Amino acid sequence: MRSDNRTAGQLRPIKITRHFTEYAEGSVLIECGKTKVLCTATVEDNVPRWLKGTGQGWVTAEYSLLPRSTKTRVSREAARGKQTGRTVEIQRLIGRALRAVVDLKALGERSITVDCDVIQADGGTRTASITGAFVALVDAIDYTFGGFGKFPITDFCAAISVGIGPNGPITDLCYEEDSAAVVDMNVVRTGAGNLIEVQGTGEHGTFSRNELNALLDLAEAATDELMANQRDVLGSVADKIGKVYPDALAMASEGDK
Amino acid sequence: MRSDNRTAGQLRPIKITRHFTEYAEGSVLIECGKTKVLCTATVEDNVPRWLKGTGQGWVTAEYSLLPRSTKTRVSREAARGKQTGRTVEIQRLIGRALRAVVDLKALGERSITVDCDVIQADGGTRTASITGAFVALVDAIDYTFGGFGKFPITDFCAAISVGIGPNGPITDLCYEEDSAAVVDMNVVRTGAGNLIEVQGTGEHGTFSRNELNALLDLAEAATDELMANQRDVLGSVADKIGKVYPDALAMASEGDK
Amino acid sequence: MRSDNRTAGQLRPIKITRHFTEYAEGSVLIECGKTKVLCTATVEDNVPRWLKGTGQGWVTAEYSLLPRSTKTRVSREAARGKQTGRTVEIQRLIGRALRAVVDLKALGERSITVDCDVIQADGGTRTASITGAFVALVDAIDYTFGGFGKFPITDFCAAISVGIGPNGPITDLCYEEDSAAVVDMNVVRTGAGNLIEVQGTGEHGTFSRNELNALLDLAEAATDELMANQRDVLGSVADKIGKVYPDALAMASEGDK
Amino acid sequence: MRSDNRTAGQLRPIKITRHFTEYAEGSVLIECGKTKVLCTATVEDNVPRWLKGTGQGWVTAEYSLLPRSTKTRVSREAARGKQTGRTVEIQRLIGRALRAVVDLKALGERSITVDCDVIQADGGTRTASITGAFVALVDAIDYTFGGFGKFPITDFCAAISVGIGPNGPITDLCYEEDSAAVVDMNVVRTGAGNLIEVQGTGEHGTFSRNELNALLDLAEAATDELMANQRDVLGSVADKIGKVYPDALAMASEGDK
Amino acid sequence: MRSDNRTAGQLRPIKITRHFTEYAEGSVLIECGKTKVLCTATVEDNVPRWLKGTGQGWVTAEYSLLPRSTKTRVSREAARGKQTGRTVEIQRLIGRALRAVVDLKALGERSITVDCDVIQADGGTRTASITGAFVALVDAIDYTFGGFGKFPITDFCAAISVGIGPNGPITDLCYEEDSAAVVDMNVVRTGAGNLIEVQGTGEHGTFSRNELNALLDLAEAATDELMANQRDVLGSVADKIGKVYPDALAMASEGDK
Amino acid sequence: MRSDNRTAGQLRPIKITRHFTEYAEGSVLIECGKTKVLCTATVEDNVPRWLKGTGQGWVTAEYSLLPRSTKTRVSREAARGKQTGRTVEIQRLIGRALRAVVDLKALGERSITVDCDVIQADGGTRTASITGAFVALVDAIDYTFGGFGKFPITDFCAAISVGIGPNGPITDLCYEEDSAAVVDMNVVRTGAGNLIEVQGTGEHGTFSRNELNALLDLAEAATDELMANQRDVLGSVADKIGKVYPDALAMASEGDK
Repeated sequence: MRSDNRTAGQLRPIKITRHFTEYAEGSVLIECGKTKVLCTATVEDNVPRWLKGTGQGWVTAEYSLLPRSTKTRVSREAARGKQTGRTVEIQRLIGRALRAVVDLKALGERSITVDCDVIQADGGTRTASITGAFVALVDAIDYTFGGFGKFPITDFCAAISVGIGPNGPITDLCYEEDSAAVVDMNVVRTGAGNLIEVQGTGEHGTFSRNELNALLDLAEAATDELMANQRDVLGSVADKIGKVYPDALAMASEGDK
Repeated sequence: MRSDNRTAGQLRPIKITRHFTEYAEGSVLIECGKTKVLCTATVEDNVPRWLKGTGQGWVTAEYSLLPRSTKTRVSREAARGKQTGRTVEIQRLIGRALRAVVDLKALGERSITVDCDVIQADGGTRTASITGAFVALVDAIDYTFGGFGKFPITDFCAAISVGIGPNGPITDLCYEEDSAAVVDMNVVRTGAGNLIEVQGTGEHGTFSRNELNALLDLAEAATDELMANQRDVLGSVADKIGKVYPDALAMASEGDK
Repeated sequence: MRSDNRTAGQLRPIKITRHFTEYAEGSVLIECGKTKVLCTATVEDNVPRWLKGTGQGWVTAEYSLLPRSTKTRVSREAARGKQTGRTVEIQRLIGRALRAVVDLKALGERSITVDCDVIQADGGTRTASITGAFVALVDAIDYTFGGFGKFPITDFCAAISVGIGPNGPITDLCYEEDSAAVVDMNVVRTGAGNLIEVQGTGEHGTFSRNELNALLDLAEAATDELMANQRDVLGSVADKIGKVYPDALAMASEGDK
Repeated sequence: MRSDNRTAGQLRPIKITRHFTEYAEGSVLIECGKTKVLCTATVEDNVPRWLKGTGQGWVTAEYSLLPRSTKTRVSREAARGKQTGRTVEIQRLIGRALRAVVDLKALGERSITVDCDVIQADGGTRTASITGAFVALVDAIDYTFGGFGKFPITDFCAAISVGIGPNGPITDLCYEEDSAAVVDMNVVRTGAGNLIEVQGTGEHGTFSRNELNALLDLAEAATDELMANQRDVLGSVADKIGKVYPDALAMASEGDK
Repeated sequence: MRSDNRTAGQLRPIKITRHFTEYAEGSVLIECGKTKVLCTATVEDNVPRWLKGTGQGWVTAEYSLLPRSTKTRVSREAARGKQTGRTVEIQRLIGRALRAVVDLKALGERSITVDCDVIQADGGTRTASITGAFVALVDAIDYTFGGFGKFPITDFCAAISVGIGPNGPITDLCYEEDSAAVVDMNVVRTGAGNLIEVQGTGEHGTFSRNELNALLDLAEAATDELMANQRDVLGSVADKIGKVYPDALAMASEGDK
Repeated sequence: MRSDNRTAGQLRPIKITRHFTEYAEGSVLIECGKTKVLCTATVEDNVPRWLKGTGQGWVTAEYSLLPRSTKTRVSREAARGKQTGRTVEIQRLIGRALRAVVDLKALGERSITVDCDVIQADGGTRTASITGAFVALVDAIDYTFGGFGKFPITDFCAAISVGIGPNGPITDLCYEEDSAAVVDMNVVRTGAGNLIEVQGTGEHGTFSRNELNALLDLAEAATDELMANQRDVLGSVADKIGKVYPDALAMASEGDK
C-alpha cells in the first residue's frame, strides 16, 4: 500500500483547467495530486532563423520551478543568471514530445512557445507539464487557425512517470516516492499507442528487461487514462486532432471556446 | 467614467487568498481585478554576510512576470540570463517597503525572502505585490515564531498606484489606463497613516504640487481600504501586529492557521 | 547646525564645468561639494529597434561609480559582469528625468546617451548626475542641431536630494548625513516649476504628509537655485530652451561654444 | 546494406587507448569509427558541499565538442559564455551512468571528474564518451587507491546508440544514419546485464513496443561486445571490478600501468 | 645542463602531423616535447560586420586548454561561463601573428578561424599554437583556393619561447623551466627574418638590453629551425607561399593533399 | 615633422597630479598630451586565497575606458556584462609591471588594487596608466606603512609607447599616429635602467632587429624622462624607494602628504 493509499498502478487525482489565465492563446492549469503546473501556449508569426523561408513552423517549451513551489526554496534562475542543467533537460524533453504530434508544415511559419511554470511540485512535474502543455497547445492552435485545411495536431500526447519503489513498480510517483525509488522512468505516448519518448534511469540501482516491461505496462495504462481525460476536457475541439476539417465543422466548434 | 465603470477613487475588486500553496511558510494569492500575483514567504535560519553576528535579520523580495502573464509574451529572464532593470527596481521597492514594518532585531538572525510571481498582469503588479507580500510575510512570521516576546511586524503595510489620466487623478490603474496616464505614482503606507514610499513619475508629462496632493489623497483612501482588507483576511493573527504578546494570547491564535 | 555649518536648506557649493573633455558632443563636470560627476552626452544617428521609422528619437543614460570614488572601494561592475540593482535603478531615473524635458519628435531619429561617471561620491550622486547631465545634453543638442526649427529641449531640469535628519528636514545631504537620515527623497523639477519625479523612501522610518510637504518646499527652493546656476553656465545657449529658433539667433550663439 | 557495408547489428571498429595523455590519473582515447573522444579522469581530495562529512564521494562528468570536431564548425562554448542545452544534457547522462557502477561510500570523500572532449564527431559521441570514460575512471581509481579494501567500481558499464533507419533497427549509427533515423535510442548497461539508462526518442516519428524490444536486443549485444573490449584493454585491472581485494592481488596489478 | 639534457639553444623534439582530423579544411597536431596542440583551420564565406563590402577577409584564433592537459586540472571555461584573461591574451596573440603573414585582400571576403586546443601542456603552448596554426592555415587556404591569382599567405611564420633561467638564456622552456625563469619572452618571426611580435616579461626579475639581445639571438635560430620544419612538412604546398601562381603549378600540387 | 610639431623622440607634455581625489590611499591624474588617466590605489588587509598564510602580499590592476573617453563612444563593459579582450590584456600588463618593482614579502599580507580609468584617450593609455599607477602605488604604500623596516617599492617604473610611422621611429604616439604606425611597441623600464616588459607588435608590417633597437633607444630616453618627472612630483617620498628606512626619516616625510 502506498503512502496515500493508492494501488501500484493508480494515478493521483487529475484536474485540467482550460483558460486558466486570460491573455495566452492557450492556458491550462494541470493538477496531479499536489503537483500543479501552469502551461501557457503563445503563438507568434515568426520562426527561428534556420526555418525562415521553409514554410515550416516550430514548437518549443520553457520550464521553471517557482522558487517556493518546492519543500525548501530553490534559488530563482533569473537571479542566478543561469538555468540549471535539470531545467534545460526538462524543457528540451517537453519540446521534443510536443513536436512529435505537430505537423510543422501544416503549422506554417509560426512559432509556438509553451511555458510550463510549476506552482507546486510534488513529483512528476515534467510529465504533468507535457500532459498539460498538450491541451494548451491544442487550444492555442484552435484559437489561431481558421478551421480549414489540415489541423496541425496529428494525435494526442500524454506523459507519466513510473518507477520501481521498495514494493515494486508504481505509477505517478509523488516526491516522497520518487526520492525512494531505485529506478525512475518517464514515458511519453500518443493516442495511437506508440511511444514518443522513454527515459529510464537507474541512478540508485539498475533494472532488468522484465522490470522495464512492467514499467512500460504501467505507463501505457496511465497515459491512456490521461489522454481520455484530455479528450473529455477538450470537448468538441478534440475531434479536430488528426483530421482535415471543412469549414463547417470548424465553425461548429467555435462555441467551445 | 472609467472603462470598467469605476469612479475615480474606486479600487478594483480585491481578493486575498491565504495558504494558496502548501509548502511555503506564507503563501498568498492576491487578485486586484485581472492582476494576479502569487506571493510566497520563505524563512531561512541564516542572514547575509554583513549581518552575521549582529543578532539582526533581513527581509528581501524577488519579483518576476511569468512569460505569458502579459498581453504579449515577455521573454523569460532565466533564459536570457539577466533580470531586466524594471524587475530589479521593483524587487528592491518591495523589499524596502516590507522592511519598513519589520523589527529586524526582533526577527533575530533569520532571512525572509518573499517571492512575488505575477500570474496575470493588468497594471499595478508592483503595488499588488507589496499588499499581498505583507500578508504572506505576517503568516510566515506567525508560523515560525513561537508566540512570545515581541512580534516582529510593527504595523500594516499596503501599496497602491494612482495616476493622472485624461480626466484627472484616478486610483488603481489597469494596464490600459496606465499606458494612457501622463503621471504615474506608487504609494506605500502604514496602518498608522504614515508614508513609507512615494514614487511619482511624469515621463509623459509633469505635475504640480496640487496634482501631487490630489494623488496622495486618493492613495491614502485606497491604502486604508486595502489595509482593512488585510486585517479581515488575517483574522486574529492581525492582532499580533505591533504588539508584545504573552504566551496565552499567542496560543489563542493557533486555531487560525 | 550641520557638520559643515550649512543651514537646513543650504546647498553645498556647486560648480558646473562645460567642455570638460574634448571628444563628447556634450561634456560636463558637476561638483556638489565633494561629489563630482563627469557627464558626457553622445549623439548617434540611430534609434532602438522599437522606434525605427517613427521619426522619433530617444534619450537614455548610464551611470557608474568609479571603483574608488567611494570611501571604501566598490568592486568594478565590468569585472563582476553585472550592474548592481542600485546602478540600474539610478540610470533608469536619469533617463526618465531627461526625457521629460526633451521633445523626442523634434529630436528626430537620433539617440543620445548620457554617461554619468562618478569620480568622487559624497552623497547625492544621482541628483548631481541629473543636474549635470542636463547641461551636457543641451550642449550636445546645440552642437548637433543646425539651429533652425524647434530646439528639442523644452525646459530646464534639475534634481536634488532632501531628507529628514536628526534635526529635521535638510537639503543636499552629504554621505554622512544620508547614512543618518530616516527619510530620503529625490526630487526632479522643471524650470516651469512642475515635478518630474518624486522618490521618497523611509527605510529607516516613515514620514507624514506634513513632513513630505516640508521636504518638497526645500526641494523647490534648491532646484530653482540649481536651474539658475545651469542658466548662468549655459549663457546664450540657455535662451534656446523651449523655443523655436530662426537661423539668425542660432548663429548668434555659435560663439558660445 | 548500410553506407559503410555494416550489417544492422554491427559495431564500427572500436579502439580504446589507455594512458593517451600523461598527466591525468586516467586518460583514454576511444575511437568508434571516425568518432574520437578523449576521456580523462581527475581525482581530487574534496567533495561538493552537500557531501562534506558524509564519508561519501562523488563522480561527475563534463563534455565538450572541440569546435571543429564536426563537419561544420560549432561555436566554442567558452567564447559564448554558456554551455548549450545539448551539452548539459549529455554531461548529466555521463555522470549518472558512471555513478551507477561506483560505490560512492567505498570511494570516500573524493571527487572524480571525467572530462570527455570530442576530437572528431561522427555520431554516437555521448555513448562513446560513457564507454571510454568508464575505462579512464577505472584507471584513475586504480592509480589512486592503494589496493586494499573494497575496489569502488562495482561492475562494468558501456553504452551504445541504436535507432530505426529506413531499413529497420540498426546499431551504432554514424552521423549520416543518425540524421536519417526516425527513432534514436541510447542504452547504458552493466556487466551483469542490467540496464542503467534507456533514452529512446522519436522526434521524427514514434515507435511501438515491438520496435523498442528490437532496439533493446541490438543494444544488449552491442554493449556486451563493448564490455568485452573494455575487459581486454584493462587487462588485470579488470579483475578488481566488483571485488574486495587483498593487498597481494592489488600489487600484482601494479605492473599493468 | 638542462633537466632533459638539452643545450641552452636546443629545441625539444618537434613533430607536425597534417590532416590529423578529417573534417577541418586544415588540421594539424603539433608536438613540442610533451606539449601537444591540435590546430584546426575553418574557412567560412563571411566576414565580421566591419569588413562587409570591403573585399577583405579576416583571420582569427581561439585557444583553450583541455581541462586535464595540465598537471592539475584547470576548470573548464565553458562551465564557468568565461574565458580567463590568459586565454584571451593568447588567442589575440595567435590571431595577430597569423594576420601578419596573410594578404587579407587576396583572401577576399572570407573568415578563417584557427582553433588551438591544447591536448597536453608542458610549457610553450602559445608559441607551439602559432607554429602549428600556421601550417593548418596554409592547408586550409590551399584547400579552399583554386590555385590561381595570388596565394594569400605572404611568408612563413613561427614562434618560440625563450627565457632566462638560473644558468642563463635558454630556448623552448618546458613547464618546469618556465616556472623557474626570471624572464620569459615569446618571439614570432617571418621566413624573411623579420619580427612580428616580441613579448618579453620580467615578472620575477628584470632584464638588460644585453640579455634581451641574447634572447633574440636564441629565438632567431629556433624559429629558423621551426620554419625549416614547417617547409619540410608542407612539401610542395610550401612553394606557393608568397607567390602568384599560374594554374599549372597550382594543379601540380594537388597530389600533395 | 609630426602633426603636433614634435621631434621623433619628443614626449607630449606630461602632468602628474597627486591627491586628485580624496578617498583613495593613492590618487593620481596623469595627463600625456590629451590622454588623461585617473589612477587610484586601494590598500586592503587581505590577499587572494592562494597567498593566505604565506606572509606575502599582492598588487593587481584594473583598467577601463570611460565610454566617451574616445572619439566615438565605446559601449560600457558593465552594461555588456563582459570586459573586452583588450581590457583584460591591458590590466594584466599593468599588474605585472607594478609587481616587478614591489617587494611582495615586505608588503605583507595586503592587497593593493590600482584602478586606471581613462578619462580621455588619445593614444598611449596603457603606458600612461603604468606611469601614473606607479605614483599612486607609492603614495598608497607611503600612506599605509608606518615608515619603518623596508619600504616595499624597490625601484621606479615607467612605460612608454614607441612605434614606426611613415617617417621612421617615433616616441609617445597619439591616436592618429598610432593608427598609421606599422609597428607598435610598449616598453616598461625600471629606474636602474632594466627592462620589465617589451611588447612589440607588427600587425600592419614586420620589423627588423635594427628597427627594434632604434625603438628601444627611443624608449630608454623617454622612460628616463618620465621617471625624472615621477621623482620630482613625489618629492621626499621618492627617497624611500628601494631603501630600508629608520623611523626618523619616515617621519620627516610626513609633511609631504
